[in-house]
Amino acid sequence: MDVKLINPFLEAGVSVLKTMAMIEPTPGRPFLKTDQSAKGDVSGIIGITGDAQGSMSISFSTSCIATIVTNLFGSAVTEINDEVKDAVGELTNMICGDARRRLESAGISLQAGTPTVISGTNHSIKHINKGPCIAMPFETPNGTFVIEIAVSG
Amino acid sequence: MDVKLINPFLEAGVSVLKTMAMIEPTPGRPFLKTDQSAKGDVSGIIGITGDAQGSMSISFSTSCIATIVTNLFGSAVTEINDEVKDAVGELTNMICGDARRRLESAGISLQAGTPTVISGTNHSIKHINKGPCIAMPFETPNGTFVIEIAVSG
Repeated sequence: MDVKLINPFLEAGVSVLKTMAMIEPTPGRPFLKTDQSAKGDVSGIIGITGDAQGSMSISFSTSCIATIVTNLFGSAVTEINDEVKDAVGELTNMICGDARRRLESAGISLQAGTPTVISGTNHSIKHINKGPCIAMPFETPNGTFVIEIAVSG
Repeated sequence: MDVKLINPFLEAGVSVLKTMAMIEPTPGRPFLKTDQSAKGDVSGIIGITGDAQGSMSISFSTSCIATIVTNLFGSAVTEINDEVKDAVGELTNMICGDARRRLESAGISLQAGTPTVISGTNHSIKHINKGPCIAMPFETPNGTFVIEIAVSG
């Protein structure tokens, strides 16, 4: 997997969360995902086609997404309700769209499907693709989230 | 949502499971998905682009997928392990590929990302797209599965 395919997704993740949700995520150390242990309580997933094929996901802990959605909408949220799921879908769309714009300017054209949102305590995600899956954990003052990218050209 | 986009996915689902897993699924009544209640214990999800955009998922109960994977590989499977997850990913790919071939011959060209497999008891799936989501439940002698299609042109 080419790092020039990966970095735009990570940059887009930080940028969208800073701009939209007014949180300052601290990136951890990216790692090659070899197990499929649970990474969150709610996840947005989007399929990618074009010059590379694959999928991207972003998984939040309940406390992390509750803070983000509270910041987004201004009213306190404590559980993963429909509003939270829609927000996760929209954030997934925005991160993927931002990454695609960054890649477009590097001459790489990707298309994206529409997001799917999974909720369920301790669910696990396995990206089935030919190449590796890179996971990038982030810390926020209110919990963690992980962006996973599995794309290969 | 156009029924001519939907039916090929349902036909492909029945065809792939009959051919590959030697089970004869009985289709139930398709319904418009308005809630996001849990539909299975393991799901394959794939993003769709091209002449229509969206996502497709197939969700199995543990007993249903255990029987399918036992049929596929000939050795008894009782839990959702890595082999089961890979099989769900492969079935998702095959159903989507079969549906795309059926649509291609009707002049509709779709591309697909790579599948993502979710596991977790009673997880729920919400497809975020502009149009409706159609859910099609199936009965098998060993449990249920559901195909969901959310695509719009």
